[in-house]
Amino acid sequence: MNIGFDVMGGDHAPKATMGGAILAQKELSGPDRIVLIGDEELIHKHLEAESVDSELFDIVHSPDVIGMGESPTRALTKKPASSISVGFKMLKTGEIDGFCSAGNTGAMLVGSIYSMNAVQGIIRPATTSIIPKEGGGVGVLIDVGTNPDTKADVLYQFGLLGSIYAKYVYGINTPRVGLLNIGTEEDKGSVLCQSAFRLMKDNSDFHFIGNVESRDFFKDRVDVFVCDGFTGNIVLKNMEAMFRLMVKRGFIDDFFARFNYERYGGTPILGINSTVLIGHGISNDVAIKNMILHTKSVFKAGISDHIRIAMDQYSKGRIFPSEDD
Amino acid sequence: MNIGFDVMGGDHAPKATMGGAILAQKELSGPDRIVLIGDEELIHKHLEAESVDSELFDIVHSPDVIGMGESPTRALTKKPASSISVGFKMLKTGEIDGFCSAGNTGAMLVGSIYSMNAVQGIIRPATTSIIPKEGGGVGVLIDVGTNPDTKADVLYQFGLLGSIYAKYVYGINTPRVGLLNIGTEEDKGSVLCQSAFRLMKDNSDFHFIGNVESRDFFKDRVDVFVCDGFTGNIVLKNMEAMFRLMVKRGFIDDFFARFNYERYGGTPILGINSTVLIGHGISNDVAIKNMILHTKSVFKAGISDHIRIAMDQYSKGRIFPSEDD
Repeated sequence: MNIGFDVMGGDHAPKATMGGAILAQKELSGPDRIVLIGDEELIHKHLEAESVDSELFDIVHSPDVIGMGESPTRALTKKPASSISVGFKMLKTGEIDGFCSAGNTGAMLVGSIYSMNAVQGIIRPATTSIIPKEGGGVGVLIDVGTNPDTKADVLYQFGLLGSIYAKYVYGINTPRVGLLNIGTEEDKGSVLCQSAFRLMKDNSDFHFIGNVESRDFFKDRVDVFVCDGFTGNIVLKNMEAMFRLMVKRGFIDDFFARFNYERYGGTPILGINSTVLIGHGISNDVAIKNMILHTKSVFKAGISDHIRIAMDQYSKGRIFPSEDD
Repeated sequence: MNIGFDVMGGDHAPKATMGGAILAQKELSGPDRIVLIGDEELIHKHLEAESVDSELFDIVHSPDVIGMGESPTRALTKKPASSISVGFKMLKTGEIDGFCSAGNTGAMLVGSIYSMNAVQGIIRPATTSIIPKEGGGVGVLIDVGTNPDTKADVLYQFGLLGSIYAKYVYGINTPRVGLLNIGTEEDKGSVLCQSAFRLMKDNSDFHFIGNVESRDFFKDRVDVFVCDGFTGNIVLKNMEAMFRLMVKRGFIDDFFARFNYERYGGTPILGINSTVLIGHGISNDVAIKNMILHTKSVFKAGISDHIRIAMDQYSKGRIFPSEDD
């Protein structure tokens, strides 16, 4: 596959992005190629400095950059020569099979939806994070910030998207989907959760196990934690903050080391007709490497195809409008 | 003061509750007395077993118990002889000055509001949790589960309630109030947060410093974190779960030890016309001891008086209806 990679995006670009691309390239084999999208001169300079043969990569010149703070829609329109704009153009024409960036998250989201569209029937694409389980393996948290406000039918679809991701990328058969709530009984929690529970109960699209709490995160009880993007983002940054405090104190063992975002590198935007991954703005070279390799995993797993197939069945299916719509 | 204490409430009652009351009594002096509310025979049995003079306590017989899973409103009506019902009756008549329990949280909340009323103008009373700061001191998280669904004006009032608590109980002058959000700019986050931000901006009731993120929890940047009870409860249980994993691994130092709920014992229900504290259902004797002593602190600090005074000024004040009402 051709993995498109935005060299210009991220707080530590281009040093960390080029470093990560070089690390990732060493782990690729066969016909897989990394397509470096960014300022050509800068790319060549970095490859030369590291004594890396530029023939190992494809290089596409895009002199412009969308800054971290720029308004996504405006930037995409006004900067057609930016690395993110060029990446999406190449994704659309099929010159690349997947695209990843640690740059402006909003531009990556908007670009994904505008250039590749959401899968037919998907109301809102979503992003994820990984929660390590104490006994090994991982849980998937969905959504982690893409959708701060959701309706119950959107949460319902997150259950489906998270299941497909957990199954085909993490190899979890029949993932157990829990609704992240503040009590376990059906009538507990927010009005949103109560509505979502009614939609999820006895559904035929994924294996719903009921309400779960944040104290269940690290147990092997749940594989997919469904929540709105506001809650998910708060949880994610809370765990990151605690992880940083632990690192500072040397309180890291094999289990807690798995809280390190570098290991996972990035999250796919689930629910669009392509493979697009976004990484943490602060990504270092290891995080970048893992994001590029994860882009390959998500592509090879055929996630967007699996979502399309599920939505074909789903559209014939049992979903009914949520009561709070 | 007379501190009313529900001996019957909590997962480990009466062993942990009686144990905690005995520990607390040793730390009280002068005219302060603990009023044990519960099954008289059982109380005497425990005091005798521990060779504690029953004259050190006041004992009020209430043979009935509201179970942890019972419907609060129904239980309060149908069980007038339950320890929680008796506690609120005594609070109303002034026989006790404060009341605390690790029992049925819903019954404590409903009982508080029905028997003591919310302070004039307070839309929704709230509960809190403590977040230890890395450099020492604490932040207050409000709300942690009492109000899973809130409007912007309710969040606004949480800013005021949290400020008063932080100031008079934790000695923080001019507490810095942050709105817990998933981005720092004014237009970031959920629709609810955007509305709340507009209410809080330039307000004259408390010192609003803007949006803050969950990654700011342990820094000395914010003294009061305002959020809806859904988000707060998720955060609280997430931290508890991480804390438990750390304890299991022996990863506890002076800082992380401060994540232990036992140290804080319980939270006041802020915004009612009295001093009522609720504790964690799993409370052990140390947690119970600290809840009883904290009840004294909250009472002595005159929290409900300070809230009334603030609301007198507030009602004349600048608040305007939120746009999402």
